[in-house]
Amino acid sequence: MHIICSDLEGVFVPEIWINVAKHTGIESLKLTTRDISDYDVLMKKRLSILKENRLTLNDIQAVIKKIDPLEGAVEFLSWLRSAYQLIIVSDTFVEFAGPLMEKLGRPTLLCHSLIVAQDGSITDYRLRQKDGKRKTVQALHSLDYKVVAFGDSYNDINMLKEADASFLFRPPANVIKEFPEIRPTDDYNQLKGWIIDAIASFPH
Amino acid sequence: MHIICSDLEGVFVPEIWINVAKHTGIESLKLTTRDISDYDVLMKKRLSILKENRLTLNDIQAVIKKIDPLEGAVEFLSWLRSAYQLIIVSDTFVEFAGPLMEKLGRPTLLCHSLIVAQDGSITDYRLRQKDGKRKTVQALHSLDYKVVAFGDSYNDINMLKEADASFLFRPPANVIKEFPEIRPTDDYNQLKGWIIDAIASFPH
Repeated sequence: MHIICSDLEGVFVPEIWINVAKHTGIESLKLTTRDISDYDVLMKKRLSILKENRLTLNDIQAVIKKIDPLEGAVEFLSWLRSAYQLIIVSDTFVEFAGPLMEKLGRPTLLCHSLIVAQDGSITDYRLRQKDGKRKTVQALHSLDYKVVAFGDSYNDINMLKEADASFLFRPPANVIKEFPEIRPTDDYNQLKGWIIDAIASFPH
Repeated sequence: MHIICSDLEGVFVPEIWINVAKHTGIESLKLTTRDISDYDVLMKKRLSILKENRLTLNDIQAVIKKIDPLEGAVEFLSWLRSAYQLIIVSDTFVEFAGPLMEKLGRPTLLCHSLIVAQDGSITDYRLRQKDGKRKTVQALHSLDYKVVAFGDSYNDINMLKEADASFLFRPPANVIKEFPEIRPTDDYNQLKGWIIDAIASFPH
């Protein structure tokens, strides 16, 4: 039996922080792990920027509600979930993803969480575990599933390497160059065909 | 962080085989593990009855399409999935569950599968793994989740015992008697309250 594991941001919805930066006009929220490679340093920076600007979780959620899924994502997801079981594994926070998951029809999402004070300010964040994407594939293997995975960037690579069939969806050029063994596509229809072929190739 | 694991039949939808028996008028399909305790013997018997009556997977799926979720199940699921992440773990077959999962809004389902011939006849079945419900909770524990589980009967007990908080939903009387340590309820609203309380009681 088989199951699908996918990333969220860049695959079904736009990058959340970049859109929060755009909508709030706070340029410094556009920083990503390409600018600050240590994720903890980056997140602490982002939370301090929110604090400086007195932005609460409610404010951020109001911004995120304005973000729409990528064009074609809802249709692709509808097909995917009618044909297979899907688990989305993301490095975002469950409190941020909520409004977007609603628009996607509430597929199951495994991700991290925020620590929010009584007044709604975000005081800290909690990574559920390290290397959670890879461990999710391992957990599904422990349930005797073959896993098809896709994602768009560096933080997906361990998941993609652990899965039984893997694809890159709209990855940056450097990721394509660095991981030539993982087929990249920009097109939901092509991805659909590859998923069907991969599952047909698994031993029955 | 926390996640919900639940059963399917008896909890969100009626028992599938009993309804197939009702709709097809084939009385012998009403047999359950209460009549034939060995699941493999029972399933082989069911498949031979389908063969005798020349019923294909398409025929059975047409019957299953007529089954509706339990009253209140769609509303309860809608609340549950807006508040938490959910994985449904069932001993049914993915090919049978399809039409019902559609009506439930396609929550993620882990279950077994059927082996279907070219002509649509069901030739055999494949259990994904033994003790799959318990192993699902263990897999979620390996992902650092606290698990709240609920189900209705014997085949859920290992899942309920493995989870961090567990409830019985509309269980038969003998299950209530045999497992007095697991609180039973017949009411979605009560179950909702218990889930909220259980998650609030987990260490943060």
